[in-house]
Amino acid sequence: MLLALAEAAKAGGRGEVPVGAVLVRNGTALAAEGNRMRELADPTAHAEMMVIRAAASVLGNDRLAECDLYVTLEPCTMCAGAISFARLRRVYYGASDPKGGAIESGVRFFAQPTCHHKPETYGGLGERESAELLREFFAERRWPGRL
Amino acid sequence: MLLALAEAAKAGGRGEVPVGAVLVRNGTALAAEGNRMRELADPTAHAEMMVIRAAASVLGNDRLAECDLYVTLEPCTMCAGAISFARLRRVYYGASDPKGGAIESGVRFFAQPTCHHKPETYGGLGERESAELLREFFAERRWPGRL
Repeated sequence: MLLALAEAAKAGGRGEVPVGAVLVRNGTALAAEGNRMRELADPTAHAEMMVIRAAASVLGNDRLAECDLYVTLEPCTMCAGAISFARLRRVYYGASDPKGGAIESGVRFFAQPTCHHKPETYGGLGERESAELLREFFAERRWPGRL
Repeated sequence: MLLALAEAAKAGGRGEVPVGAVLVRNGTALAAEGNRMRELADPTAHAEMMVIRAAASVLGNDRLAECDLYVTLEPCTMCAGAISFARLRRVYYGASDPKGGAIESGVRFFAQPTCHHKPETYGGLGERESAELLREFFAERRWPGRL
C-alpha cells in the first residue's frame, strides 16, 4: 500500500486526482500506476484499470488468477466491474468513497446478482494517508470564493 | 447500428463474444470496434471501452461531448461506468442482458446517486439481430452433452 500511496502522490503531481494502485501476485508487484485520465485523454485510465491492463498484458491472460489489488481509494463502478472480470482474488483499499465508490458504497457491485466473480475486500488500509492526499489536492484547486 | 452489428459478427469470427460498438459524433463514426478481451489479453477490452478510448484519443479529450454510442448488447457495469465518465450524450443498444447488463438490468447504474452523468438511453435497436449473433455463438460452443 506504500507503493500505491507513492503512485497516488505522483498522480497528484501530474495534476490528476491522486489515486494509486498496485497489482501483486505471489508477493511480486506486476504493475504500479496512478490515475492518467487527463494526461492520456482516456476516461477509463483510472489507476485500477491501468494496473489490471498492465498485469494482464504481462501474464498474457485476461484472467488474473491469484492476483491482489492495492488501491488508495474505494474503486468506482467501472473499476469494480473490471476487477470482477479480471477475477482478482483480493482488493485492499484505503479511503472509502461514498460519492463514487462501488464496494461498500453506491451499487455495492460485488453483492449483486449480475456480479459473477466476487473478490475478498478489505477497506481502511492506509485510509488516513489516502484521504489526506485527496483533501490536499482538492483544497489547492478550490476557488477562493468557495472557501 | 448496422456497423455495430458488423463489428459484432467480426468479433465472433475472432472467437470473441460477438458484441460490437460504434462511437458517433455529429453523424460521423469516430470509432468502430468489437470485443477483443481474449485477443488482447485485456479483461477491459469490451467493444464499448474500445470505442470510448479510441474516440477520446481522436478528440484529445477524456470527455466526449455530443457523442453517441451504438452497441449491440446492453452495456455491463464496467462499461456503464465508463459511459458516464466519458459524458456520452446518448446510448443506443440492441439486446437486453438480464445476467450482466447495468442499464435496465442489474445495478441500473444511470439511476443511482453515485452516477454523476446520465446519458439518454434507448434499448431494443437491432435487438433481434444482436441476440441472434450471441445465440449462434454460444450454441456452437455448447458441449453436446449439455444440449
